[in-house]
Amino acid sequence: MSDFIVPDLKKMKLPRDLKKLDTKQCEALCSEIRQILIDTVSKTGGHLASNLGTVELTLAIHRVFDSPKDKIVWDVGHQSYTHKLLTGRLDRFSTLRQENGLSGFCRPDESVHDAFISGHSSNSVSAALGIATAMKLSGSDRHTIAVLGDGAFTGGLVYEGMNNAGKSETNLIIILNHNEMSISKNVGSVAKYLSTLRTKESYHKTKNVVEKTLDLTPLVGKPLIKAIKSSKKAVKNVMLGSTMFEDLGFEFVGPLNGHDIEELEAGLKAAKQLKKPVIVHVNTIKGKGYAPAENNPGEFHGIGAFEIATGNPDVVPADSYSTVFGHELTALGKKDSRICAVTAAMKYGTGLQYFSKAFPDRFFDVGIAEEHAVTFCGGLAVQGFIPVFAVYSSFLQRAYDEIIHDLAICDTHAVLCVDRAGLVGEDGETHHGIFDVSFLSGIPNTTIYSPSCYEELRLCLRQAINNDKGIAAVRYPKGRNSTIYEVSEPTVTYSHSRNGGRLLVISYGRLFENVLKAQEQLHNSGIVFDTLKLVRIFPLSKEIIDIINSYDAVFFFEESYRSGSVSEKYASVCSNVASFAINGFVKHGEIHSLLDSCGLSAEKIAAKIREFCDG
Amino acid sequence: MSDFIVPDLKKMKLPRDLKKLDTKQCEALCSEIRQILIDTVSKTGGHLASNLGTVELTLAIHRVFDSPKDKIVWDVGHQSYTHKLLTGRLDRFSTLRQENGLSGFCRPDESVHDAFISGHSSNSVSAALGIATAMKLSGSDRHTIAVLGDGAFTGGLVYEGMNNAGKSETNLIIILNHNEMSISKNVGSVAKYLSTLRTKESYHKTKNVVEKTLDLTPLVGKPLIKAIKSSKKAVKNVMLGSTMFEDLGFEFVGPLNGHDIEELEAGLKAAKQLKKPVIVHVNTIKGKGYAPAENNPGEFHGIGAFEIATGNPDVVPADSYSTVFGHELTALGKKDSRICAVTAAMKYGTGLQYFSKAFPDRFFDVGIAEEHAVTFCGGLAVQGFIPVFAVYSSFLQRAYDEIIHDLAICDTHAVLCVDRAGLVGEDGETHHGIFDVSFLSGIPNTTIYSPSCYEELRLCLRQAINNDKGIAAVRYPKGRNSTIYEVSEPTVTYSHSRNGGRLLVISYGRLFENVLKAQEQLHNSGIVFDTLKLVRIFPLSKEIIDIINSYDAVFFFEESYRSGSVSEKYASVCSNVASFAINGFVKHGEIHSLLDSCGLSAEKIAAKIREFCDG
Repeated sequence: MSDFIVPDLKKMKLPRDLKKLDTKQCEALCSEIRQILIDTVSKTGGHLASNLGTVELTLAIHRVFDSPKDKIVWDVGHQSYTHKLLTGRLDRFSTLRQENGLSGFCRPDESVHDAFISGHSSNSVSAALGIATAMKLSGSDRHTIAVLGDGAFTGGLVYEGMNNAGKSETNLIIILNHNEMSISKNVGSVAKYLSTLRTKESYHKTKNVVEKTLDLTPLVGKPLIKAIKSSKKAVKNVMLGSTMFEDLGFEFVGPLNGHDIEELEAGLKAAKQLKKPVIVHVNTIKGKGYAPAENNPGEFHGIGAFEIATGNPDVVPADSYSTVFGHELTALGKKDSRICAVTAAMKYGTGLQYFSKAFPDRFFDVGIAEEHAVTFCGGLAVQGFIPVFAVYSSFLQRAYDEIIHDLAICDTHAVLCVDRAGLVGEDGETHHGIFDVSFLSGIPNTTIYSPSCYEELRLCLRQAINNDKGIAAVRYPKGRNSTIYEVSEPTVTYSHSRNGGRLLVISYGRLFENVLKAQEQLHNSGIVFDTLKLVRIFPLSKEIIDIINSYDAVFFFEESYRSGSVSEKYASVCSNVASFAINGFVKHGEIHSLLDSCGLSAEKIAAKIREFCDG
Repeated sequence: MSDFIVPDLKKMKLPRDLKKLDTKQCEALCSEIRQILIDTVSKTGGHLASNLGTVELTLAIHRVFDSPKDKIVWDVGHQSYTHKLLTGRLDRFSTLRQENGLSGFCRPDESVHDAFISGHSSNSVSAALGIATAMKLSGSDRHTIAVLGDGAFTGGLVYEGMNNAGKSETNLIIILNHNEMSISKNVGSVAKYLSTLRTKESYHKTKNVVEKTLDLTPLVGKPLIKAIKSSKKAVKNVMLGSTMFEDLGFEFVGPLNGHDIEELEAGLKAAKQLKKPVIVHVNTIKGKGYAPAENNPGEFHGIGAFEIATGNPDVVPADSYSTVFGHELTALGKKDSRICAVTAAMKYGTGLQYFSKAFPDRFFDVGIAEEHAVTFCGGLAVQGFIPVFAVYSSFLQRAYDEIIHDLAICDTHAVLCVDRAGLVGEDGETHHGIFDVSFLSGIPNTTIYSPSCYEELRLCLRQAINNDKGIAAVRYPKGRNSTIYEVSEPTVTYSHSRNGGRLLVISYGRLFENVLKAQEQLHNSGIVFDTLKLVRIFPLSKEIIDIINSYDAVFFFEESYRSGSVSEKYASVCSNVASFAINGFVKHGEIHSLLDSCGLSAEKIAAKIREFCDG
């Protein structure tokens, strides 16, 4: 310890050199990493609290296993920043979440150490089992490690994965990173059950037994397994009996102190030696090492840029589509006691905190369980209630079948409030809400609204709740209403503005602003065109078709995936419609820049129109 | 017992009068019902074994609870026939699964006693929780009962539901109908765990304790609860400790003998008195009371018409799209050891029994868990294997998000073999495969094939496995290739037949046969048109667009939901295309009759063409 050298991430061969560090060096490295995380995220924004909580765990994993020969699958990816730093991405870390920079999630095309894509919750066990099975088929005895938080345990996909993994005879290790938080406080009986494990005092015992066992065995390896297996009692001590996981066929190690690097490594080594499916329960503190994040892990889950000294965000948004929705729903809930609000672990993200406070009995946070949320809404609705499920567009994808089966077939009245519709910016492919128009419009008995400002959101919500039948979806983007144009006629249907042009330009939602900007840009060139703002975007409207047919040409700009889009549908019945929409997955970046790359910025829209008018 | 009167279902007020029967009459009624089930299903086809297994259970439920005030939610609905008979549908029972007749599943629009729709597995807990929550909000203390088989327990949606139900403080009763079979033998560690419960000898104890407790209490009701609750030991005896369910917050009753009406009723009464979420574990024998079904519950799960004396099906299909697929995949698997086959509890239904026998290590039955199946395929694929997931079209809906997130974003190569694509006939709305074209074509990096005969299925499968990148989906209908036309040029792309017409008629899959039939029908009227059979139906092809543009008019007939269909997509880029597709949910009935009602029979196609040519 006298020749202590502070490890320098910049100079290390990663992740190989991590194994050379002693405990003190590991601790120093963890401090260094925490500082990088805080510095970077304070500038770029991103997921901070979850990453601060898993610094030691990530280091321990990389010291006990050999990535990329062993495969690490990070669930959701909210906790993968340290992994990025420890696998040679320090030099690019300041580009985190910026266009052409590092992704905020795991991406196999970003690094060979990212074994599987992450972004949507609860997929890690199934993906890791696929990888572990492939290894077994290939004759490899390497390990696959899935790391997931207790929040992910509320998603049914985890159970499907565990049901298949328990009996799989693979070298699969599932690490439960238990911090009792996902995005907000976890809900449900599984979370409660896991908490009973967390609070068991036995991790010190585990630590001691594991260490003792290791001390007694000259070489780590078969002797260790033998030592553990020879004594049933010892096994029970090391593998703290957890009936639920044991019932599912797993060995169980833990709970381990997730901020004690030695205990973590001892536990992971024990799990590694077992050569069968193991659950390792690790207790961590979300936000560890940065007081503002420890005190407010929810606020520092996903955050924009902030001031390090105080933890105060750069700009506190005074309003957003989410909060406008939340306030309006609360007002409606006051008048109509049939209205219920449902969220899948996104109470704050969707703006439902106001409703939940006003009507706790009619508010339901179901955990990360979008499928259940929709079917549960179906049950409420058939009894005469009006369920409103507020959910991010890309996560609603998981409930596609339930929307068809448990709502649409019986023409059940339910309201889907689809937040984060359209491009979301820095979170990238997995989070852009570019498919909801396509999949919702492909379901019978569905009406879709895409308001272009706060007031239209309020109108559409009232219309959807009070007047519509069947499924009514109201979709709106992430963030604030940034329009510089006053909406003179808020509407739930459409607004047609005639200037005597032979060209009509249609759009909806926030993108309509870009059409107005293009109009302004082209004004000086003497290019005149008419505009149509759609608000009820589906089903198609006979009125709109008639309007379209009265023009020489119609350009329809749409912030949605092209195949299955509304513009495609109008184009299929009107021969003069040209559809401009998104043509594939879109990477992460700043929204206006992404829109431009999709041909949907004001400039690109203006260019298309100019081309047509000049042509 | 001397004045024993055999109960006559026809004359009873149902379900009310069921409560008046004594045990002997109940047993007689169960025999009567079994005979009706066997007689009817031998003519109509349907789900037999599962219904024979739940006769006593259904009767007990209706005697202990008051439908429709209490709500019964049947999972999947494979076991709802007795429920139909006991709720006044005897007179229409012979119309089961026939057009305009009774549905083979539960339908709220068929009876007030059908509390929720059924068809897709594992939704019952979530739906029942929604109903139970609505009751609680309305101040009702009525019960909601979800009945589900152990097969449904492999679906993640059940866990999402249980995670929320356990802590819900509702009068929710979940009845686990445990027969260790769903469609084929259940798989996974949950099934294994449930089996350990099943084999516990304690149900006699349960029976005795429950009965004793009932005897000791003069009135059923609060005294019973008190009696149970007052003694912790008694509670433990009655509520046989099942850690997994208890961990999830439920009380537990059982296992009960599912063919002993007295024991069932005692157990259900105990559950009813608890006034909180309860799991009732009921052991049943699938096929009970009909030897061929007891001996072959898999074969009698879903069956066509059969001869009662022998149990032999009317016609044993020598071949089907499923078996052709199964044989071809086995042949390909012989040549390429990277090919893996995955099914979600449909080994026989999808024709994978041949592959599973030949390559047991590369065959994976994951249970009713389509989401896991897709993500697991993603894991196999990133390690260089070629996963082939064979799945029914309507069940693949449940994996929509996983196809996007865990396959498409990384452009992972995986093959989806989409069986039961198009209308499936008697199973109706919940089972028609009319959405896969729309949702798969709405996902980037996806290629879709729709072969029109066995040989094309083989070609497409080889193409998808050996040559394609990304997601390749091969979709084919239920049953046999019935075409009377020889396919002279099997292809994986398209086949264009020129007769000098100014009209081109496009179709794909089995529907193309109807186009040829229409051609024949119109031949004598001197009406001539060209045809184009599409096999690779998506993405759109420049070649096809050029061909389309060379015609005055193009009629595109498609056995898929209209919104998001391929014909809509071609119509959006070619102004001369008219799209004829399915415009909403389609009820159950005989396939040709259903096609006719959708305007897709040969006659309706001919009529459209005649109209155009005469116009």
